[in-house]
Amino acid sequence: MSDLIYLDVKTEKRGQFIDVTPEILKVIADSGIKDGTIELFVPHTTAAITINENADPSVRSDILSYLEKLIPQNGRFSHSEGNSDAHIKSSLIGARLSIFVSGGEPVLGTWQGIYFCEFDGPRNRKLIVKIKSD
Amino acid sequence: MSDLIYLDVKTEKRGQFIDVTPEILKVIADSGIKDGTIELFVPHTTAAITINENADPSVRSDILSYLEKLIPQNGRFSHSEGNSDAHIKSSLIGARLSIFVSGGEPVLGTWQGIYFCEFDGPRNRKLIVKIKSD
Amino acid sequence: MSDLIYLDVKTEKRGQFIDVTPEILKVIADSGIKDGTIELFVPHTTAAITINENADPSVRSDILSYLEKLIPQNGRFSHSEGNSDAHIKSSLIGARLSIFVSGGEPVLGTWQGIYFCEFDGPRNRKLIVKIKSD
Repeated sequence: MSDLIYLDVKTEKRGQFIDVTPEILKVIADSGIKDGTIELFVPHTTAAITINENADPSVRSDILSYLEKLIPQNGRFSHSEGNSDAHIKSSLIGARLSIFVSGGEPVLGTWQGIYFCEFDGPRNRKLIVKIKSD
Repeated sequence: MSDLIYLDVKTEKRGQFIDVTPEILKVIADSGIKDGTIELFVPHTTAAITINENADPSVRSDILSYLEKLIPQNGRFSHSEGNSDAHIKSSLIGARLSIFVSGGEPVLGTWQGIYFCEFDGPRNRKLIVKIKSD
Repeated sequence: MSDLIYLDVKTEKRGQFIDVTPEILKVIADSGIKDGTIELFVPHTTAAITINENADPSVRSDILSYLEKLIPQNGRFSHSEGNSDAHIKSSLIGARLSIFVSGGEPVLGTWQGIYFCEFDGPRNRKLIVKIKSD
């Protein structure tokens, strides 16, 4: 049996990409697992999880601002809470991600980092993680 | 060995989000599995699977209608069947989803439901499911 | 333990969908695994992996050209490398995919093929694959 681990993610803006790669590295190290898979799940409908560039932070700001241009908060929506744009972005980016683990490290490309995507913050969020050995 | 389960999903409109959470609950209950993962796959190229809000139905109608605004059926496409918009939406939302199972229940946030996304209905669709114990 | 397999994918245009279904079939056949899951991961931040129609090639060109229309390369971006559009497309389509394997074959719908999505080519890319028996 693999236990579920609930990580806290505190967001500070309405739209924000938070680098959770260090937390994922820690989960893997703490588990002692060398080869397997780490699975991530966002239990929220106005947030998501993705992989993107870890070097130039303007990449993340470009993604966020362009998504806001494509799907503006003040589009004509029926849902009365004023966050339909965030629900759409959540389904487009997705709430689920799996990453291979090899030699005790996540298998990521040189420029890849793991980002929790907040689309309706600031909020206190959870990221649910499970790590499995091969 | 985990068997594949083929669920029938009957759609009634061109664009529709169908709540399949009850069917997923039933698969988990029938399996007797307490802790593991349930994996979902859509074997169609003009449909998808996503998680989004299960409370206010206007969220789903907002997602569908905004996707139709962004990617209209009558955009200028080459594909002669007139459903290129549905193929694009299918790749953007995605055909694959995995959900943790804990204590015999799917691990979902309070407001999360599982939706089969029809983009070129009405049709008789399949949703393929596999449940694995940890 | 399941080994990671690194497949080479050579792209020839800036935007291109490459059918990698034959390579995936070969990995499954070589593994001898009859029932399980094959997992795919793209270790790049300007590429992705998706499933879409394998019959009419105009579907793929429609997807690529419509994504370019929605998210043009010359949008107003901060990132100085001129490929922010490709980073956005990568996160929208996604870098991760899993496919069931049954009877030694990938479980795909009649019209489904597996496509490596290049958004900032031409480049020499990798696709990382792991196959697991049930």
